[in-house]
Amino acid sequence: MQTQKLLVNGGRLKKELETFADFGRTQNNGVTRLALSEEDRLARDYFCTCCEELGMNVKVDDMGSIYATLPGIEDKPPIVIGSHLDSVKKGGRFDGVLGVLAGLEVVRTLVDHNITPRIPITIINVTNEEGARFEPSMMASGVLSGKFDKQEMLKKKDSNGITFEEALQASGYAGDIRNRLEEATAFLELHIEQGPVLESEGLAIGVVEAVMGMVCYEIEITGESDHAGTTPMPMRKDALFAMNDFIQNIRTELNKLEQDLVYTVGRVNVKPNIHTVIPNKVVFSLEARHKDAEVIDDVEELIRKQAEAIMNEGDCQVQLTKMWSRDTVWFDEKLVTLLENSASALGYSYKRMISGAGHDAQFINKIAPSVMLFAPSKNGKSHCEEEETSWEECEQGANVLLETVMTLLK
Amino acid sequence: MQTQKLLVNGGRLKKELETFADFGRTQNNGVTRLALSEEDRLARDYFCTCCEELGMNVKVDDMGSIYATLPGIEDKPPIVIGSHLDSVKKGGRFDGVLGVLAGLEVVRTLVDHNITPRIPITIINVTNEEGARFEPSMMASGVLSGKFDKQEMLKKKDSNGITFEEALQASGYAGDIRNRLEEATAFLELHIEQGPVLESEGLAIGVVEAVMGMVCYEIEITGESDHAGTTPMPMRKDALFAMNDFIQNIRTELNKLEQDLVYTVGRVNVKPNIHTVIPNKVVFSLEARHKDAEVIDDVEELIRKQAEAIMNEGDCQVQLTKMWSRDTVWFDEKLVTLLENSASALGYSYKRMISGAGHDAQFINKIAPSVMLFAPSKNGKSHCEEEETSWEECEQGANVLLETVMTLLK
Repeated sequence: MQTQKLLVNGGRLKKELETFADFGRTQNNGVTRLALSEEDRLARDYFCTCCEELGMNVKVDDMGSIYATLPGIEDKPPIVIGSHLDSVKKGGRFDGVLGVLAGLEVVRTLVDHNITPRIPITIINVTNEEGARFEPSMMASGVLSGKFDKQEMLKKKDSNGITFEEALQASGYAGDIRNRLEEATAFLELHIEQGPVLESEGLAIGVVEAVMGMVCYEIEITGESDHAGTTPMPMRKDALFAMNDFIQNIRTELNKLEQDLVYTVGRVNVKPNIHTVIPNKVVFSLEARHKDAEVIDDVEELIRKQAEAIMNEGDCQVQLTKMWSRDTVWFDEKLVTLLENSASALGYSYKRMISGAGHDAQFINKIAPSVMLFAPSKNGKSHCEEEETSWEECEQGANVLLETVMTLLK
Repeated sequence: MQTQKLLVNGGRLKKELETFADFGRTQNNGVTRLALSEEDRLARDYFCTCCEELGMNVKVDDMGSIYATLPGIEDKPPIVIGSHLDSVKKGGRFDGVLGVLAGLEVVRTLVDHNITPRIPITIINVTNEEGARFEPSMMASGVLSGKFDKQEMLKKKDSNGITFEEALQASGYAGDIRNRLEEATAFLELHIEQGPVLESEGLAIGVVEAVMGMVCYEIEITGESDHAGTTPMPMRKDALFAMNDFIQNIRTELNKLEQDLVYTVGRVNVKPNIHTVIPNKVVFSLEARHKDAEVIDDVEELIRKQAEAIMNEGDCQVQLTKMWSRDTVWFDEKLVTLLENSASALGYSYKRMISGAGHDAQFINKIAPSVMLFAPSKNGKSHCEEEETSWEECEQGANVLLETVMTLLK
């Protein structure tokens, strides 16, 4: 005999997602809601009002992150659900906000059913996840976890020269360091996948067991800028063709590594960048992501080998700069299993996944057992106005959250 | 028995080259003497004074090109010697000015020896060869030959919004259309090679039999900009990797064509050019130069084939734009042979060459039998402050000019 599952109100969740899409709506149905902007402030104000109407206790920490708590019967560390309300410029209506509003919907459902939870439930809105206005991304969760220095972060400026600290004060959301999240029973973050895997495999839920480690190099190749018409091919020191060789050879080698390795040359700048002049300098990025540290080590070794190969040819110099790297963050295995069980109990199709994108949960994982779940992204698109997740998929994600909370409350 | 050859005064040529290097000298011993700038005006004024002191008759045409003529015994079309006094930004002390001052030195040598030439000798300074201030390059010779429309050229603006016409008026060198070069017995242009061939082969003189034909394409590849972390490799539509394949494959094919084909990818622009985003657009130039039209045809065919190959893979779109092309210009064979004989008679090492760079002579060739000769460029450098040709090599070039003029005067 199957128990009747408690389910969220999908229509209400849809309505709230549509409401929040108005805070910074763009011409093409996207959202520009940069961290601590006027649009963000309006979204925050509305979110706080919603939470207070549910009898939740709203606090703000010194980085502006909001914690709305529904008190529990026992005074234990809360179950925390949430994500971020800020967006990139011309971003979508689901990235971040889905995780916050699904948390709100979970609490509303409990309140609807007059359920007083055994332990407190906190919905969190983490400030400046995107880093689109103030770099770096995941700023507030980075400070929370000790990854980033708060004083440094306060000085970060947007493109108009306004510091994070000034924007925080102006927003009215400069809170108290004592309100920071210090412990939690669990942190649960529902987010859109931002990739095409769930959609292409026809799955409703991604149970995220880790955030992939990555490494990013800047590679500078220096040759000589000679006249494109008068320099015979064998006498050239062409930095662009050297880059071409580098990329082609490393692609061949990288494709022999693990199948789920992803790597990207996203940025290329050529000098002097004139069609009649042989390029003397090319600077490009090469980043790679994989869950296994050994694979990332292999990538770095291949980068060094390719650099040496170019240097050995004698025409061009290669300089490697490791811009950054991060280790794979493994989420709490018990919570991962719990999410799988929840999805399964609800009859939703799901698979375990590794997130290629970074998320607040990777930092909050240092404070409390954490886990993420993904809802499908149409055509894998995110950080653009075309970003789309169906209402049904949003509802299913929220239901998995609710089912998981109910289990944790037992 | 060998006749004693008439020779130029190398010391005087050196002194004048040094004088002209002061008109726009840069910090690192280069020259910035943009067309019709104050520096160009000073160089022009000094040049005119020198010519007038030799009893030459100085005229200026409607594009500002200067013609200084030493009258001949017979009123026949002149022997014209010259090049251009303008330079690129931070250019060198030899490009262009060498051809004008070698002409001046030839006339001075004749005057030194009280030689009244059988036919007139004209030194020409052609306006705006570089196109560094007002595009296109070879502007005035292009108008002279009917390649460019004068009214269009007058409207061309520099980076400050000043039109060519305004700059021409302000310079005091707006002359009369009736002074244009209309016929000549021969046009002789001494120029630096701007490439490394003469130096690497230890030769003093390049006898230029042609200016290479060329073709330049702009190639635009469009893919999709997805998240670098979340999009599995097989699901990407990466415009940059498509460009990489295009360039690598076409290099392999182009290298199978004629050995003296030169080709360059000088300009590459990537969008959005962010290290964490798969590029959705890459626009790059591909230009190729060769003397044979069939080889250029082959290049174009290969470009089309590569575009098709990328399109057939189904991930990216390719759009080809033929930016421009020019046919190979063959110089007057009699004059080519005459130059060879002159170099040989003087005991200078030389070889026939095809110019990969464009020069005024390719347009003036339409008006009168023309030919060029090259002096070596140290390390093949030009259009930069490091541009260098030894004084001895400059003198040897001028001596070949003088020897050739003496033969033409017989």
